[in-house]
Amino acid sequence: MLERPFITLTTDYGLKDSFNGIMKGVILGINSNAKIIDITHNIERHNIYEASQIIGMSYKYFPSATIHIAVVDPGVGGERRPILVITEDHYFIGPDNGIFSPIYEKEFNNFFKVLHITSSHYFLPMTGATFHGRDIFAPVAAWLSKGVDSLKFGEQIFDYIKITLPKPSLSGDNIIHGEVVSLDHYGNAITNITTDTLSQLAPIDSKHKFKIMCRDQHLSFVNYYAAVKDQALSATINGFGHLELFVNQDNAAQIFNIKIGDLISVMLEN
Amino acid sequence: MLERPFITLTTDYGLKDSFNGIMKGVILGINSNAKIIDITHNIERHNIYEASQIIGMSYKYFPSATIHIAVVDPGVGGERRPILVITEDHYFIGPDNGIFSPIYEKEFNNFFKVLHITSSHYFLPMTGATFHGRDIFAPVAAWLSKGVDSLKFGEQIFDYIKITLPKPSLSGDNIIHGEVVSLDHYGNAITNITTDTLSQLAPIDSKHKFKIMCRDQHLSFVNYYAAVKDQALSATINGFGHLELFVNQDNAAQIFNIKIGDLISVMLEN
Amino acid sequence: MLERPFITLTTDYGLKDSFNGIMKGVILGINSNAKIIDITHNIERHNIYEASQIIGMSYKYFPSATIHIAVVDPGVGGERRPILVITEDHYFIGPDNGIFSPIYEKEFNNFFKVLHITSSHYFLPMTGATFHGRDIFAPVAAWLSKGVDSLKFGEQIFDYIKITLPKPSLSGDNIIHGEVVSLDHYGNAITNITTDTLSQLAPIDSKHKFKIMCRDQHLSFVNYYAAVKDQALSATINGFGHLELFVNQDNAAQIFNIKIGDLISVMLEN
Repeated sequence: MLERPFITLTTDYGLKDSFNGIMKGVILGINSNAKIIDITHNIERHNIYEASQIIGMSYKYFPSATIHIAVVDPGVGGERRPILVITEDHYFIGPDNGIFSPIYEKEFNNFFKVLHITSSHYFLPMTGATFHGRDIFAPVAAWLSKGVDSLKFGEQIFDYIKITLPKPSLSGDNIIHGEVVSLDHYGNAITNITTDTLSQLAPIDSKHKFKIMCRDQHLSFVNYYAAVKDQALSATINGFGHLELFVNQDNAAQIFNIKIGDLISVMLEN
Repeated sequence: MLERPFITLTTDYGLKDSFNGIMKGVILGINSNAKIIDITHNIERHNIYEASQIIGMSYKYFPSATIHIAVVDPGVGGERRPILVITEDHYFIGPDNGIFSPIYEKEFNNFFKVLHITSSHYFLPMTGATFHGRDIFAPVAAWLSKGVDSLKFGEQIFDYIKITLPKPSLSGDNIIHGEVVSLDHYGNAITNITTDTLSQLAPIDSKHKFKIMCRDQHLSFVNYYAAVKDQALSATINGFGHLELFVNQDNAAQIFNIKIGDLISVMLEN
Repeated sequence: MLERPFITLTTDYGLKDSFNGIMKGVILGINSNAKIIDITHNIERHNIYEASQIIGMSYKYFPSATIHIAVVDPGVGGERRPILVITEDHYFIGPDNGIFSPIYEKEFNNFFKVLHITSSHYFLPMTGATFHGRDIFAPVAAWLSKGVDSLKFGEQIFDYIKITLPKPSLSGDNIIHGEVVSLDHYGNAITNITTDTLSQLAPIDSKHKFKIMCRDQHLSFVNYYAAVKDQALSATINGFGHLELFVNQDNAAQIFNIKIGDLISVMLEN
């Protein structure tokens, strides 16, 4: 059987308890060749949206056939379904609560399938109903990593839960309207405006100047952080192709009190 | 020689310094095939009891022959002994300060042995006396993981240190008296009352109703977190078979100021 | 080709975002046999000095031919060069901003070389200029770990950036003057005075007594933490051979408001 050794973990378990360590123990007990990579365990508690952003921007950087487990799961033990999402190049395992919504958008093609995980003989014998990361998601990922046919884990469903991800829009007067979708560890504010969005206005080159507005402020647009020599709120294209607001060597979110959902607009300068 | 590749780490080293990274470097320098899993490095400084709870609830989820290193070690460099605990299915390496007390209770059978680690030719040449995680515990675990006979590391002792772990009791009037033994990252309060304890009162089924009391409050007892629709302090059986107090989607410990040692009682409802 | 499977990571990325997870994904996509060890991701933001101390005290504990990636990189995307430092036993990859300064001191011999990494065919196709950890350092380390000749990554340079690391000095009146160079997670204060420095005064044995002064206080000098029975600021030789100030079972830095740069002097007692 074809092994798929790589398994990533994204959870809100934190790093104080043994929850993520136990998941790794369960995986390695089933497949001692599994290679487990932590994406993060510091998702804000129950913040499904934050987890979906993290997974959506990260999964493509992992090897083909990587299995991504995501556990931000306020509904654990209740009626929400455990699911396995199969895409052309990756697998995703977690609760059916919208956590994989960016995947539903980016990977919706002929390879795409969502299964309700029902094959409980792959589960751990269950004590209590609080730790499906250990009892369902970890063992299913481990068996999948050993090469078990992905279709054996359950039945295809079409009514999986999607959360609405804010989209940038281009208004008739040629203004792009976007918003802040995440804040990173440095206080940089990542928007949903991408290079693709910007190129609807004009090619991103030295001939065209973009005017970026946030709270009636005009932000300078530079190629890298250190190109700004003062503490001004500025903008750049980040490593994921998104327009990002930053303060060079300081915390933009704190200094300018930027929140997720804050509006950003971009137009061409005259 | 039979390899035992899995080694876990539980420490109060935190994640700011390079202490746990260095331990991994030392292990891999001796056994490049070792597979090291972090349980946690965020045990509260010098909190031997907290570490013992974490290890006691986690070790069984790791593969057979896993070696568990635990370093919460206020007496490092002094007279406290380094020990190797051998059980039917696992090994434990750390200071003799009571950190493995739950193992002494759960694994006390014919396979059980505690060795004072004295074979110093397995140690790193020592500089200073502050980092036995690197100089003693990591190299001993690495050599053990390569298949060295466990009895070669020292001599059996019987006067190893135990810390007293609070036990639930069943009083004559059929009331279970237990207490909170740990608080997790979410603010859930885990008690020492298990399904085994509860079944001394009555089978855990839909026919019997348990009345759970904490600070003169009567807590509802449900099967999973989201079954509670308000902010009430409630109880469930958690994934480790323990009675756990929680607030659905909120921090029970903070809201209700729950502390380790808080008393819980359970009786049958009339 | 000779594989060099071990790669360590030291960054200021924190543990909230997916930055370090993505670097691991990139490395494993190039070399699925790579074994990646986190040293820390909690370097204070942009604190190149702190990172240099962590790397300088840690690298020797990793196996021969380990590749150490360090990313604390305020100048990312600008003119600062990416570099590969080749020493007798280890490799170092990161920005040319002084982060490897302790290596320049300790490993300056016939094997020592610093290369400006210019072979961009080893890089990831670049989007934005904010994430060279993913786009340059991770893939270069991964290709090096697969056995690519280290000299293929760029050209040797001699004008690499060094930061000044404070050195202890021995004054004419036989007083050692040193300072605090780092504070660990426990609040212990590590000085730049080593056993080598002390032995310039006298052999470190029971016949000679060192008088250690910090802020006009005379500190007792002991062999291990628990030898001090009160809350006094005290000194010991730590596991790295450095004089370290501590309070037994408490946080010396907090209690005595110790800062990096605080002066320490040592003389022989009469």
